[in-house]
Amino acid sequence: MAPDSRLSASPAKSGWRAWNASERGVQGCAVPVPSTLLLLLTYLTYLVLGTCVFWALESPAAHDSSKRFQRDKWALLRNFTCLDGQALDSLIRGIIEAYKNGDIVLGNTTSMGRWEFVGSFFFSVSTITTIGYGNLSPRTMAARLFCIFFALVGIPLNLVVLNRLGHCMQQGVHRCARRLGGAWKDPAKARWLAGSSALLSGLLLFLLLPPLLFNHMEGWTYVEGFYFSFVTLSTVGFGDYVIGMNPSRNYPLWYQNTVSLWILFGMAWLALIIKLILSLLEAPRESYSCYPQSSKGNFKPRSWSQGLDEEAGPHSPQPSCSPEGQHPEPSTQVSCCGKDS
Amino acid sequence: MAPDSRLSASPAKSGWRAWNASERGVQGCAVPVPSTLLLLLTYLTYLVLGTCVFWALESPAAHDSSKRFQRDKWALLRNFTCLDGQALDSLIRGIIEAYKNGDIVLGNTTSMGRWEFVGSFFFSVSTITTIGYGNLSPRTMAARLFCIFFALVGIPLNLVVLNRLGHCMQQGVHRCARRLGGAWKDPAKARWLAGSSALLSGLLLFLLLPPLLFNHMEGWTYVEGFYFSFVTLSTVGFGDYVIGMNPSRNYPLWYQNTVSLWILFGMAWLALIIKLILSLLEAPRESYSCYPQSSKGNFKPRSWSQGLDEEAGPHSPQPSCSPEGQHPEPSTQVSCCGKDS
Repeated sequence: MAPDSRLSASPAKSGWRAWNASERGVQGCAVPVPSTLLLLLTYLTYLVLGTCVFWALESPAAHDSSKRFQRDKWALLRNFTCLDGQALDSLIRGIIEAYKNGDIVLGNTTSMGRWEFVGSFFFSVSTITTIGYGNLSPRTMAARLFCIFFALVGIPLNLVVLNRLGHCMQQGVHRCARRLGGAWKDPAKARWLAGSSALLSGLLLFLLLPPLLFNHMEGWTYVEGFYFSFVTLSTVGFGDYVIGMNPSRNYPLWYQNTVSLWILFGMAWLALIIKLILSLLEAPRESYSCYPQSSKGNFKPRSWSQGLDEEAGPHSPQPSCSPEGQHPEPSTQVSCCGKDS
Repeated sequence: MAPDSRLSASPAKSGWRAWNASERGVQGCAVPVPSTLLLLLTYLTYLVLGTCVFWALESPAAHDSSKRFQRDKWALLRNFTCLDGQALDSLIRGIIEAYKNGDIVLGNTTSMGRWEFVGSFFFSVSTITTIGYGNLSPRTMAARLFCIFFALVGIPLNLVVLNRLGHCMQQGVHRCARRLGGAWKDPAKARWLAGSSALLSGLLLFLLLPPLLFNHMEGWTYVEGFYFSFVTLSTVGFGDYVIGMNPSRNYPLWYQNTVSLWILFGMAWLALIIKLILSLLEAPRESYSCYPQSSKGNFKPRSWSQGLDEEAGPHSPQPSCSPEGQHPEPSTQVSCCGKDS
């Protein structure tokens, strides 16, 4: 949701200033056209690859399902003799239309599936987190227009909260690493250990353990619960699995609250992981060089890792990192400028 | 999708290095606990506010719909005398269950709604953009597991592409501003004009004009088309409106391709807008001061706008900006370090 991070979380006091500052930031940088075309080609190839795999995996199953439904329909027609084939088809179409319009509210729908407080709250959460399950969606024009304004402020607010939570998580990991590093006299090993522990405990807490809870509360298999967890935390939110929607089950109040907290912290954690992958994806096409700023005329290239591993004193020349032929990305700047903080 | 932008688009050559660099970046910064609590309280209040409005707007309409459906059901029972109330209820439940499981494929479903090439491609796009309409969702375990891996790489790849497109858009605006500024001898006015023109033309191209196309091709009202446009580009994707799903209409090939391009460029544009709002939301709680780094001991506060408006020469002392009592955000660093680029 925040792909161009040069503007993200800008401290400028007006939006226009942020826009202009960002414009100024890209001054003098040029993204080579062939590289952009190559990127778009990779993107398209990846999409077509995925398309073919989904097609191959789902098409036979969908075909079987369709056949099974036709068989069931014939069985229905035998049971209800007053219905002919055409009447049943129009009945089915009518029922599906009513269901899609949200008209069908069967007696025993759970409160999560209705426009009551719990359902509305769940809808609000699914909107500003951009999960958008779609098990509920507004039908009145007023609610739709309000939904747009609600999301326009709510999505950035949600990003601010996730930003803060992610920062707190990173700070916790960093504190652990510092404490371990002090005890072991080996900061690099301590950082590595703290990082992997954070990754593993996050994996356990946000992706591997929740399916057990969903198995107990919703009756889903472990893989179904894992699939739901990933689809939710990545904000894809197909809506094929939604918690608290089974009318034959009783859901305690702590369950929905726990799941809300899980969504909030889990999204912050998964966003960090996705950005790690992002950094891996962006790294190969960019080569960096660092040079001391005070001797800019006398160009002295230094490797990126060298620049990271050295600790500059508060009065030493500030190294400036620029991707060769690329626009400077924010975390480059964090690493460069953050040294004295 | 990329809330914590400190790690976003990191140029570090390994994910671990990015994680560690980011940890180092937050060293010595502490987010005050009351400020985080206040933020969470604001978040919760905003959610409850939205909940109440949606509840008030949708609940009566849902109640009316439910009543109307009950009335229609009685009419059905009169027409089909072989069905009693209980049989019809179980029939409705069975049909909805089959529909939710994707079993019902009525003869005249469009190719967008089936697991064929076009449908699979549309599903792939909706997955890696995290829109996740849910009009199609994988039913086989193999496809679900593949979907997770596909999204794990695809979502960051999509962010890279959006990042690049957003950068190209900003570069275009910047070039216009420079050319206008050169002709008018008033760079500030030129920047303002180029910025507002970009905002307005984006609004026209991505949000105000597409509903006219959807009105023509799908038969939706203008407000419905606008709602669909916003819900799609913000990646919420409820799935209550999806293009190309009306079996009674013929869709030309250029339509689906144009909509795909619209999604790609529109998401890049809306992400910029949402980040402008993000910068406005984050600004009030942070007050910044800039001081020349070479005289760090002799603290000389300067206002943020002053720091932005002055252009530092390549050999002048590098100003360092730090939010007071806050962690440094990436675009702070872009503005600070980008001056010499």
